Amino acid sequence: MGKIKVGILGSTGSVGQRYVNALRDHPWFEVVALSASEASVGKKYKEAAKWVLDKEMPEGMAEMEIVRATPSEIKGSGAEVVFSALPSEVARRTEMEMAKAGLFVVADTSAHRMDPDVPLLIPEVNFEHLAAVETQRKKHGGFIVTGPNCTTIGLAISLKPIQIKFGIRRVLVSTMQALSGAGFFGVPSMAILDNIIPYIKNEEEKVASELLKILGSFKEGCFENANIKVGASCHRVCVLDGHTEAVFLETEKGASPDEVAKCMSDFTSEPQRLRLPSAPERPIIVRNEPDRPQPRLDRLSGTPERAKGMATVVGRVRKEAALDNGIKYVLLSHNTIRGAAGNAILIAECLKAKGII
Amino acid sequence: MGKIKVGILGSTGSVGQRYVNALRDHPWFEVVALSASEASVGKKYKEAAKWVLDKEMPEGMAEMEIVRATPSEIKGSGAEVVFSALPSEVARRTEMEMAKAGLFVVADTSAHRMDPDVPLLIPEVNFEHLAAVETQRKKHGGFIVTGPNCTTIGLAISLKPIQIKFGIRRVLVSTMQALSGAGFFGVPSMAILDNIIPYIKNEEEKVASELLKILGSFKEGCFENANIKVGASCHRVCVLDGHTEAVFLETEKGASPDEVAKCMSDFTSEPQRLRLPSAPERPIIVRNEPDRPQPRLDRLSGTPERAKGMATVVGRVRKEAALDNGIKYVLLSHNTIRGAAGNAILIAECLKAKGII
Amino acid sequence: MGKIKVGILGSTGSVGQRYVNALRDHPWFEVVALSASEASVGKKYKEAAKWVLDKEMPEGMAEMEIVRATPSEIKGSGAEVVFSALPSEVARRTEMEMAKAGLFVVADTSAHRMDPDVPLLIPEVNFEHLAAVETQRKKHGGFIVTGPNCTTIGLAISLKPIQIKFGIRRVLVSTMQALSGAGFFGVPSMAILDNIIPYIKNEEEKVASELLKILGSFKEGCFENANIKVGASCHRVCVLDGHTEAVFLETEKGASPDEVAKCMSDFTSEPQRLRLPSAPERPIIVRNEPDRPQPRLDRLSGTPERAKGMATVVGRVRKEAALDNGIKYVLLSHNTIRGAAGNAILIAECLKAKGII
Amino acid sequence: MGKIKVGILGSTGSVGQRYVNALRDHPWFEVVALSASEASVGKKYKEAAKWVLDKEMPEGMAEMEIVRATPSEIKGSGAEVVFSALPSEVARRTEMEMAKAGLFVVADTSAHRMDPDVPLLIPEVNFEHLAAVETQRKKHGGFIVTGPNCTTIGLAISLKPIQIKFGIRRVLVSTMQALSGAGFFGVPSMAILDNIIPYIKNEEEKVASELLKILGSFKEGCFENANIKVGASCHRVCVLDGHTEAVFLETEKGASPDEVAKCMSDFTSEPQRLRLPSAPERPIIVRNEPDRPQPRLDRLSGTPERAKGMATVVGRVRKEAALDNGIKYVLLSHNTIRGAAGNAILIAECLKAKGII
Repeated sequence: MGKIKVGILGSTGSVGQRYVNALRDHPWFEVVALSASEASVGKKYKEAAKWVLDKEMPEGMAEMEIVRATPSEIKGSGAEVVFSALPSEVARRTEMEMAKAGLFVVADTSAHRMDPDVPLLIPEVNFEHLAAVETQRKKHGGFIVTGPNCTTIGLAISLKPIQIKFGIRRVLVSTMQALSGAGFFGVPSMAILDNIIPYIKNEEEKVASELLKILGSFKEGCFENANIKVGASCHRVCVLDGHTEAVFLETEKGASPDEVAKCMSDFTSEPQRLRLPSAPERPIIVRNEPDRPQPRLDRLSGTPERAKGMATVVGRVRKEAALDNGIKYVLLSHNTIRGAAGNAILIAECLKAKGII
Repeated sequence: MGKIKVGILGSTGSVGQRYVNALRDHPWFEVVALSASEASVGKKYKEAAKWVLDKEMPEGMAEMEIVRATPSEIKGSGAEVVFSALPSEVARRTEMEMAKAGLFVVADTSAHRMDPDVPLLIPEVNFEHLAAVETQRKKHGGFIVTGPNCTTIGLAISLKPIQIKFGIRRVLVSTMQALSGAGFFGVPSMAILDNIIPYIKNEEEKVASELLKILGSFKEGCFENANIKVGASCHRVCVLDGHTEAVFLETEKGASPDEVAKCMSDFTSEPQRLRLPSAPERPIIVRNEPDRPQPRLDRLSGTPERAKGMATVVGRVRKEAALDNGIKYVLLSHNTIRGAAGNAILIAECLKAKGII
Repeated sequence: MGKIKVGILGSTGSVGQRYVNALRDHPWFEVVALSASEASVGKKYKEAAKWVLDKEMPEGMAEMEIVRATPSEIKGSGAEVVFSALPSEVARRTEMEMAKAGLFVVADTSAHRMDPDVPLLIPEVNFEHLAAVETQRKKHGGFIVTGPNCTTIGLAISLKPIQIKFGIRRVLVSTMQALSGAGFFGVPSMAILDNIIPYIKNEEEKVASELLKILGSFKEGCFENANIKVGASCHRVCVLDGHTEAVFLETEKGASPDEVAKCMSDFTSEPQRLRLPSAPERPIIVRNEPDRPQPRLDRLSGTPERAKGMATVVGRVRKEAALDNGIKYVLLSHNTIRGAAGNAILIAECLKAKGII
Repeated sequence: MGKIKVGILGSTGSVGQRYVNALRDHPWFEVVALSASEASVGKKYKEAAKWVLDKEMPEGMAEMEIVRATPSEIKGSGAEVVFSALPSEVARRTEMEMAKAGLFVVADTSAHRMDPDVPLLIPEVNFEHLAAVETQRKKHGGFIVTGPNCTTIGLAISLKPIQIKFGIRRVLVSTMQALSGAGFFGVPSMAILDNIIPYIKNEEEKVASELLKILGSFKEGCFENANIKVGASCHRVCVLDGHTEAVFLETEKGASPDEVAKCMSDFTSEPQRLRLPSAPERPIIVRNEPDRPQPRLDRLSGTPERAKGMATVVGRVRKEAALDNGIKYVLLSHNTIRGAAGNAILIAECLKAKGII
């Protein structure tokens, strides 16, 4: 049986390059279409993309010709699944056109995340939300599944086992976000060297709303938000990759830091049971050193090798006396791997393993 | 009338240099003694100190000879007041010896901060705590006044007007602290470039305990802690100077973000009324841009010119729906000016203006 | 007698902001016109410019309305002199239009630098080239004077006294250039953090050709290049402001490092004799420490206060045994002050002091 | 046949860790002894070393007990070969003691580099110098082989094929050196962020003297220096790993940039012929993009995978008109891999492959 043919929309940007890199030797998927903006159409990928990863561009894809992000061109290439890393201004319309043309869209863009029949998915956290695609499939032929914002994703993974075991009442998070989260050209060096920018547009709102959908339930065809109070303060710092987040939370049942740390490091879920190719052995790695996680040392952590950058690394789990049943910890999540391309590929693997595609 | 003669203990370190720099043309104080570790005794200051500020070393002090940090050498120089930037391992004993010898010690070290008869002072916030020096003076002849940790100080200033006007129940703060807070040699470049270290030893404990003393009262000869719940998560980031802090808080009385911002920017206190030389015109500068304060742009803010680095800059004052009467904001405070030498000099100015020295 | 009225073309960019900042209280010049691109015309300066300096925007200019960069609008404002920080694609045409309309243009753009009747001027180095404006004035009514590339300027200043005293045969320079040289948005943080970019488009060619014109002569109405061999290798490093350059050179007459250092630190020229407001007391500051100049510590050096950033700081003057009569040293020059706006203002001061305008 | 047993002297420092990392699964060598300073003796390696690499500490070595760097302890462990990453103050004596005890010492320290019977070796460049160990062996029983300074090594590799094919008269090099070259604690972050330090103690002298020995010959039992004029200017920049060097040179025979680039990229040598495990497939990788090599993107370059960090990456090969037969280019070499541990391991592989050990 051959591999599933896939396309990458917005393949030349920094998240697009993460897809290209991650799919170079994927056991289940084969890239047959790469799209980019009009100016790049017809060029070879190696000419269209200003490659920024330290691993070399995969030779096969370097020679592929860029196509337009239209359903006909994508379907013409034979692709069934498309990964979307489109710019937000075109994502909404294009992704829906693809779904209506019968394609299966996995998007790490924000356009459709909060749509009532679109799953906002982290396979380890809420794989049961995938059921929502059936409604879409009936309506459109194809469907859209989205992955969350890069800031939400590590937070949601770290909270899930705590939610299961102790319940969560309140979460307050301060983020220290990496530069790559704004795209390769997003943050000028003059703006951030020896500096912090304590603002990321719409980010705090996204963290709060997305987290509630992800940690909520899908019942009788409807998503229902989790009953948790969530507040965020988001900041850009001078780090290349890896979002660090300082989390304060109130659990429903009392829990010691050791119990919380243990439930996190014991946590496994559907992608681990299904042995998906991109699933990390453990979704959460808990470190015991007093000064970890650190982005440069931990952002690519995770075993086995193939799972690099897919695990959420947690450290400094400790009591927070200023809150009732208070706990605080620090987490680190690779924002362009788990926070974007890696999570989307894991979603696609999940779709295949469960026979949805 | 001549100037008051002062000495600087630990004058060659990075905070020591801030004292030297700030006292170069002080209208009330004249530096007559500079101490450093044994290896430097007898050398000229310019030979003993590896000067790291971009403003040149003051010529007069460059030629001064380093003395030992003993009461006899300091008193021999004619100094009445000593500013202590001593390393923590010697601060406790040396500062007390100086006080017992009749000297007036202003320390930004942590050794005596929590002592029951030692004020932990930010002149704008709790100048009335100065009364505690009388007990010391009776006991020792001299006395010690301390300034808080560099992380606590901006936080306490920003909270004071809110405490006065609306009351405070709970404070949760995440810090993004500058490199200079660890001293010039404190953080290796290999440790922090493209990185965050999510841990500063004892810092979270200090923020919580110091804040309660500062925002508390001094009644009938005793300090009484404020009744506020305080939690902190402290992180080192790759910024030269200026601690950024993301604050979540619950007020007692409900207050809109505009009301909170207004009470902060309207706030003035004793140093402003006394027109102390180092007092900023306004202790708190509230900025309205969505992306401020930023350390590189705002750490030296403040008017008039002489007050550079003494104001706390606050921005992004907004509602926090996840807390009852919840407010959140971001603050910036220069950690080696207001957070160390500048605050200590302001304390000394306060002592003089009130006739205590 | 009133001040001379001036306009700033391209006033919202990073060099434009340096002009606005430097001219806030200029004793001879008054800013009456600020131009920017079409999208900004009609807006207030404070709305059109994303201000990036740590010193606040001058209040007077903040409220000025942006005008078009046309001769009629500029002349309508009453301006006689225009400083051009225009983008290169429009500089050539616009600057010439202004000159033909009788305006006196001082440009730090590259468009007209190599024109046969346009001086490429560093007032301390080749003020006698100003004579070339007479030819222009006869032809056009107005005229253009240009300042060199930010990389050439510190190099030329440091070489001039050596050229006078010992003669120069050969110069090889390796540069480590600051981010601001590429404009505020020029270098993405993702491109340069923990990195070097060993290439700056056309820069090496500019250094070689400009240096020869500047160090050459103006005789009988013609510029004649200096007879020096010049080679450059240009690199971008992660420094905000201040170009560092490692210079190897061969002198004609033998000279010891001490003699070379002395002739540099003794050097003064026409701007010093004329006591121009922006002239540094000494064009070259020679430092004796083994590890200076350093960009962060030395880029704003220079006395008196008003001349900050206008001096070239030189250090490590030493013998180079691999060359005949070989000398090597390191220099530092502030690229957006002396390397752009500051040099242009000094040119304008020179024009006025010599009665040319 | 079992593996050769080796010890690592100075195993806890940043170069020591590179050895530990590189030898984790070496096909020919097995680590049986780890030494460190007195305070660490008796501790487990994982307790003694503050691990700073992003790849996890090898499990086997983590549990090894630190021994003293004495011949008896090292020989007691069964080691025949010792790699020395000792601090310079103890290297000279200790390395000689080891050799006199019959051990084979491979040192990347500077202590014995210029000794008359000690090879200063880069296996691709001057493997024939290994003959010098026979004299030592007769005298001492064991012997010492050294590797060059991290700055010299990439330069020497890049020059060797040019020397062979065109001859070299003169080399002028400006370096932009990485932080790790000074050791993990060597450069404080406060010293280098937004800065350059244009000085590295003794570095310029080392580059000149070492290069001449390496590119020279070994005849009749004596080393004879190459007849090349060499000058260097050395600077520290804010880059974690990877020294960048801007090279100007004069060849004896004229050569076009294309010819020079070709002779570099065609170059292979003894380690490639011997297929040594750590040998890169090509010692020099020539890149054609205008803006490469860049440290972050290229420092780990090299194929096959096992050779990461061992190749010298060269770019921007171009004509230098300011020199006779002038050529200039930019090179990048990983300073703690090829510049230290990696080169030493390659030396040891060479010793074994040639039957010397």
